[in-house]
Amino acid sequence: MVQYSIGLDLGGTNLRAAAIDSTGKMLDKIAGATNFVEGREAVLGDMVAAIEKLREKHGAEGLAGIGAGVPGFIRFKEGYITNSNNLPYFENYPVRDEMEKRLGAKVILENDANAAALGEKWIGAGREHDDLVLLTLGTGIGGGIIYGGKIVRGFVGMAGELGHITVVPNGNPCGCGNRGCLEKHASATAVIAMAHMLHLGENLTAKDVNDIAKQQDEPGEKARAIWAAMGEALGIALATLVNTFNFPLYLLSGGPLPAWDFFAPRMMEVVKQRSYTFRATGTKIEKATLGGEAGLYGAAYLPWEK
Amino acid sequence: MVQYSIGLDLGGTNLRAAAIDSTGKMLDKIAGATNFVEGREAVLGDMVAAIEKLREKHGAEGLAGIGAGVPGFIRFKEGYITNSNNLPYFENYPVRDEMEKRLGAKVILENDANAAALGEKWIGAGREHDDLVLLTLGTGIGGGIIYGGKIVRGFVGMAGELGHITVVPNGNPCGCGNRGCLEKHASATAVIAMAHMLHLGENLTAKDVNDIAKQQDEPGEKARAIWAAMGEALGIALATLVNTFNFPLYLLSGGPLPAWDFFAPRMMEVVKQRSYTFRATGTKIEKATLGGEAGLYGAAYLPWEK
Repeated sequence: MVQYSIGLDLGGTNLRAAAIDSTGKMLDKIAGATNFVEGREAVLGDMVAAIEKLREKHGAEGLAGIGAGVPGFIRFKEGYITNSNNLPYFENYPVRDEMEKRLGAKVILENDANAAALGEKWIGAGREHDDLVLLTLGTGIGGGIIYGGKIVRGFVGMAGELGHITVVPNGNPCGCGNRGCLEKHASATAVIAMAHMLHLGENLTAKDVNDIAKQQDEPGEKARAIWAAMGEALGIALATLVNTFNFPLYLLSGGPLPAWDFFAPRMMEVVKQRSYTFRATGTKIEKATLGGEAGLYGAAYLPWEK
Repeated sequence: MVQYSIGLDLGGTNLRAAAIDSTGKMLDKIAGATNFVEGREAVLGDMVAAIEKLREKHGAEGLAGIGAGVPGFIRFKEGYITNSNNLPYFENYPVRDEMEKRLGAKVILENDANAAALGEKWIGAGREHDDLVLLTLGTGIGGGIIYGGKIVRGFVGMAGELGHITVVPNGNPCGCGNRGCLEKHASATAVIAMAHMLHLGENLTAKDVNDIAKQQDEPGEKARAIWAAMGEALGIALATLVNTFNFPLYLLSGGPLPAWDFFAPRMMEVVKQRSYTFRATGTKIEKATLGGEAGLYGAAYLPWEK
């Protein structure tokens, strides 16, 4: 009988679940838009239904466990989310226990970026390493720290909130109460906000700002300056992380990755300047390889984590 | 027979060694000024002689091992120092192997702040916790990260260089190549430099700046502003560390600690503002309790670390 696990990834715009075997082979995947505005009961129902569907198809006997990656600050032991921009109705609600009750099975609830880092370590860009840090560049910036092959969770489960590292002490205000958080200067949202401030267009996406940066004109120059500013903010945060952990590998993932050639040169220049450890060692800063699936793989790996 | 270990702490101005038993009781201590300008051979000779003296007195049979804490960036596996302000002649010199050769015994070489963090974890302010971060405020600022009861070393041994976290992107230049390193804004040296810039006196110490801060006059006001600036820099770094690790405990040690009442209020205010995790959890930021002996205890504990 095939040993498999079910991973669920609750993203900003959609819900996905997959059955993945112990070698990392994806056996089956369910993906669909989830209407977050429909509220807690609808979203919870969709989550449980997706998992049940996979379990019915692949059999309860071979199921090693269920893991779920969700956005927001996590209380790991209690299994709930304490602060999430997308899912206000899940805040301080016993989402894990409720899932377990409906499924009649154990569920491991984890922060989505922590799950993504674990996925990259399992079968992605980090599979050769036991120690790595992942930054997920999206609406915000998530972080996941893997040490000795396992997620660093901290004493309540909030470790790895690397999007809230201060990179500009008097920078843009953040919903977390801080100013100059990394995610307010280097996320896709931050890049888009800078593009709007420079009047590069309306309703832009990070991809648009990347396309504009390829132009040999004034808007192109402005877009390149935006990516350089974003790269500088990332560089400050990465230098701090390299000086803190001295891990061999730091990974980046998310929507802005196609603009690598525009932001990475400045980012690397800043890391080199700001980190003696980076210059003195063979530290690698690279693209993650699992893309949007990292969180799904990582969630599925949670039952096998130790 | 008493099981004991020998710890050595090579500080900025003196060399100390101690025989400590497995319960953390200090059996014996040797302390003396070391004339760093006399060069490598003299310092190395003093280190070896101090250890030999303790071993002769307490017997080679009960000796569990020898640990040495030294300042600078460490190559742990190779056992040497790659970058140290105080000991240029030890850079890239096989100091551990040379000690082992002369002593005919194994020596564990560790960064002094890492050793101090381990000491605080063993029998100091961190003994109730397996996960903590220590910042040592001195000439520079050292850092030590304890996770699962053990030092986080990174892949070459340079983890925990927390004095080089960027807290002011365009701040004071640092010997490490960066600008705005924590240690250039919050070490004893930084406090003294600010006091000299404000003409509060000549050849001041951190203690002097603390004394001036107690005065109800204009110099007193200036000195308090210096401690507030120092506290703000510490707060930025601590918020980043809390957001990164979500550990239950962060400790501070070193010469500026008596000025706690002048720098800690601003420090705590900044941590509260900049860290959602701090506000949402029972994270503690406290004074270390072993003072200057932490590194000695931690060095002695190294042979028992796992």
